[in-house]
Amino acid sequence: MSDTYREMWRELDMDLEKHDVFLGTLPVAFGEVFLRQENRPAGMAYFDNALAEAHGGRIQEILAGKKAGRMVAGTFCVFAPEELIFAVDGISIGLCGGAQFTVPTGEQVLPRNLCPLIKSAMGFKLDRICPYFQAVDFLIGETTCDGKKKTWEILNEYVPTYVMELPQKKGAADLTLWEGEIHRLKEEIEHRSGREITADRLASGIKMANARRDALARLYRARWADPVPISGKDALLISQLAFFDDPERFTAQVNSLCDELEDRIARGEGVTRKGAPRILVTGTPMALPYWKLHHLVETSGAVIVGEETCTGTRYFAGRVAEDGRTVEDQVKDLARRLTAINCACFTPNKDRVEDILRLVRDARADGVIYFSLQFCQPFGVEGRLVERALQEAGVPVLRLESDYSEEDVAQLKTRIEAFLEMIAS
Amino acid sequence: MSDTYREMWRELDMDLEKHDVFLGTLPVAFGEVFLRQENRPAGMAYFDNALAEAHGGRIQEILAGKKAGRMVAGTFCVFAPEELIFAVDGISIGLCGGAQFTVPTGEQVLPRNLCPLIKSAMGFKLDRICPYFQAVDFLIGETTCDGKKKTWEILNEYVPTYVMELPQKKGAADLTLWEGEIHRLKEEIEHRSGREITADRLASGIKMANARRDALARLYRARWADPVPISGKDALLISQLAFFDDPERFTAQVNSLCDELEDRIARGEGVTRKGAPRILVTGTPMALPYWKLHHLVETSGAVIVGEETCTGTRYFAGRVAEDGRTVEDQVKDLARRLTAINCACFTPNKDRVEDILRLVRDARADGVIYFSLQFCQPFGVEGRLVERALQEAGVPVLRLESDYSEEDVAQLKTRIEAFLEMIAS
Ligand code: SF4
Ligand code: SF4
Ligand code: SF4
Ligand code: SF4
Repeated sequence: MSDTYREMWRELDMDLEKHDVFLGTLPVAFGEVFLRQENRPAGMAYFDNALAEAHGGRIQEILAGKKAGRMVAGTFCVFAPEELIFAVDGISIGLCGGAQFTVPTGEQVLPRNLCPLIKSAMGFKLDRICPYFQAVDFLIGETTCDGKKKTWEILNEYVPTYVMELPQKKGAADLTLWEGEIHRLKEEIEHRSGREITADRLASGIKMANARRDALARLYRARWADPVPISGKDALLISQLAFFDDPERFTAQVNSLCDELEDRIARGEGVTRKGAPRILVTGTPMALPYWKLHHLVETSGAVIVGEETCTGTRYFAGRVAEDGRTVEDQVKDLARRLTAINCACFTPNKDRVEDILRLVRDARADGVIYFSLQFCQPFGVEGRLVERALQEAGVPVLRLESDYSEEDVAQLKTRIEAFLEMIAS
Repeated sequence: MSDTYREMWRELDMDLEKHDVFLGTLPVAFGEVFLRQENRPAGMAYFDNALAEAHGGRIQEILAGKKAGRMVAGTFCVFAPEELIFAVDGISIGLCGGAQFTVPTGEQVLPRNLCPLIKSAMGFKLDRICPYFQAVDFLIGETTCDGKKKTWEILNEYVPTYVMELPQKKGAADLTLWEGEIHRLKEEIEHRSGREITADRLASGIKMANARRDALARLYRARWADPVPISGKDALLISQLAFFDDPERFTAQVNSLCDELEDRIARGEGVTRKGAPRILVTGTPMALPYWKLHHLVETSGAVIVGEETCTGTRYFAGRVAEDGRTVEDQVKDLARRLTAINCACFTPNKDRVEDILRLVRDARADGVIYFSLQFCQPFGVEGRLVERALQEAGVPVLRLESDYSEEDVAQLKTRIEAFLEMIAS
């Protein structure tokens, strides 16, 4: 913790003492969860450092960008059209919360019966221990689940929060609504950044977002190999950092890691023995620094080979067409991601079942863990449908619900071990 | 329980044994909650009987209607445009569940962390003890809260469930979306009923729904008097029955009760002493046979003088214009109710605060109870905003969260009594 950083945090009006306590807990967790792993790819060094510098060097960069006139926006959903932010050379940060530390503070203004991701994010703002929340010019919320939708009203008291209306179905009328919403956000961003979004600029923004999607898709494909060349934990960490890092640098680093992973695959080298039980995770997003489930599974002898989540495949689903010539057409292309990403917030959402079954085949998963954050009603209710479809397809499935606390760790471990035994037999 | 009814229930494929158990619990509850009240208006006799015949005479009527070719639709939200159902001479039934009895069954297919109203409704269908659920041709669900939105997917496995997309904001684009949804429902209803919805028929439907709204608004206005001429419990029962009864007969009966109540007001006669503590309730709907909160408040020396809920003022808000000449115009008029009803499912929903403050003044309430069903996230999160606004306006407010069980009755009573003491002092 250099003095430069402390000075920077002070200027961001952060609660320095609380922030020290929070940061103090992280190196321990990180060491235990990540550094003890065997045979990690060398390319993880970049991401380990990105995490270490998440509240330091990266914030310095962002503040330098701000000084140079770059707009900084916080987002909370993979549907946020970051391409528009990139188009004005803005900085986009994904601000979902993954820490138990801030949940009690979030509960001061939110009901306890709300998903920890939302309470944690709110707590980060109220506690003033997240430099990103302090640095953003504004937030882009969406009407996704009830919890988020209603939380924007409260968050808006602390940071300007612009709300996009994400439709709840995927018909023609919904595409029209969503297209309109993207146009309205475009105007908001032009206004806030003082820059016009031309077709050229938007084309660059789309390319930048697509390049990141392509790199992550490549990473996820590498995980289909047996033995798997990278742990689920490391892949999750990379996905989580995608929300914070500079997109071009991040993309380059993911691609260079993928070079290494593909070499490993060619050599038949992995982080586990060939034939280790392979688990696909599906469900709610896992925001930084939530690693609980992955850690439990991967210290029980299995490996996670994919996540059908918004910190997984849903994040890079819905590549945007790059041949739109006019802003009008490009916005239409952006809007089409609506139909390509299958979140439980939509009704019906049957295509998600297809996505999961395809991933099970591609990643050669031996079983699926359906994971919901506690009080998440969309993924909670949808679990029954997915569970049944998997059972019908003969895929073993375990449903787990959890929060960010450590209280249920022993119980989860028992259930995970029983599931792995069942798969093995 | 006549043999005719048993035969009818059998033909509806009901679970007769479970139904007997369920019905057996009701007379006791009803006697205790309603019949012990003093000085009830004579006009309540009709509604007491309507409740007694809810599974009997009213079902007979509906089945006779069905035989004569009338369509029967179940609804779950005050935004369901019943006018379209009335336009084809169809029968509309509001099917939200208010009974603890069916909650455990609902939990067999739904997460426990879901509002009891939804779990109870689902349980009624699974248990086959609700003759209405058995009699409907189809259900009209809406994308309101997450719980309902996702439950339609499951309910649809048991009864055909058509889902309308209720927008989440109230801008121009939302009105357009909702108007389209009403047009699509119109087609669905025309198709199902085999009748065309002409401007004339829709005009009658609108008039019928408005007449019921007017009667209920009149009833609610009568409650502004001090002493209040009718208990909150009785007014709630009437509101609940509005969802089941024949609308024209119901409207006539409410109006004739209002004649009686207005006479009482003229004579200064009430169900409590003048000056008894007056409570306004705001929050989630209270579906039949949920009377817990009202019973607790009104056996603690206070009287409930209004409900800003969907089994209260929100039910009759948004009178529809009657001068539309074309179906196109009438649908626009129907769509406009979107902006007139302030449900926590919308964001933002600031006008609800105005509604509550106006009601506090009109009904001369001494305090407000903000009531949410457990796990209701829209009303749960919005509670903070409303609570603060009331406090700023100097209105005492008590926030309660509860479910359909009797477990928290003692605790609720203690909190209600403390609140009433605080108001009195
Ligand atoms: S789970 Fe749904 S609401 Fe959440 S980030 Fe993903 S797409 Fe958005
Ligand atoms: S995990 Fe569920 S409840 Fe939480 S923010 Fe995502 S969709 Fe909403
Ligand atoms: S509370 Fe909202 S969702 Fe429920 S019936 Fe009322 S308007 Fe519909
Ligand atoms: S009470 Fe709340 S959770 Fe329950 S159905 Fe109504 S809006 Fe949904």
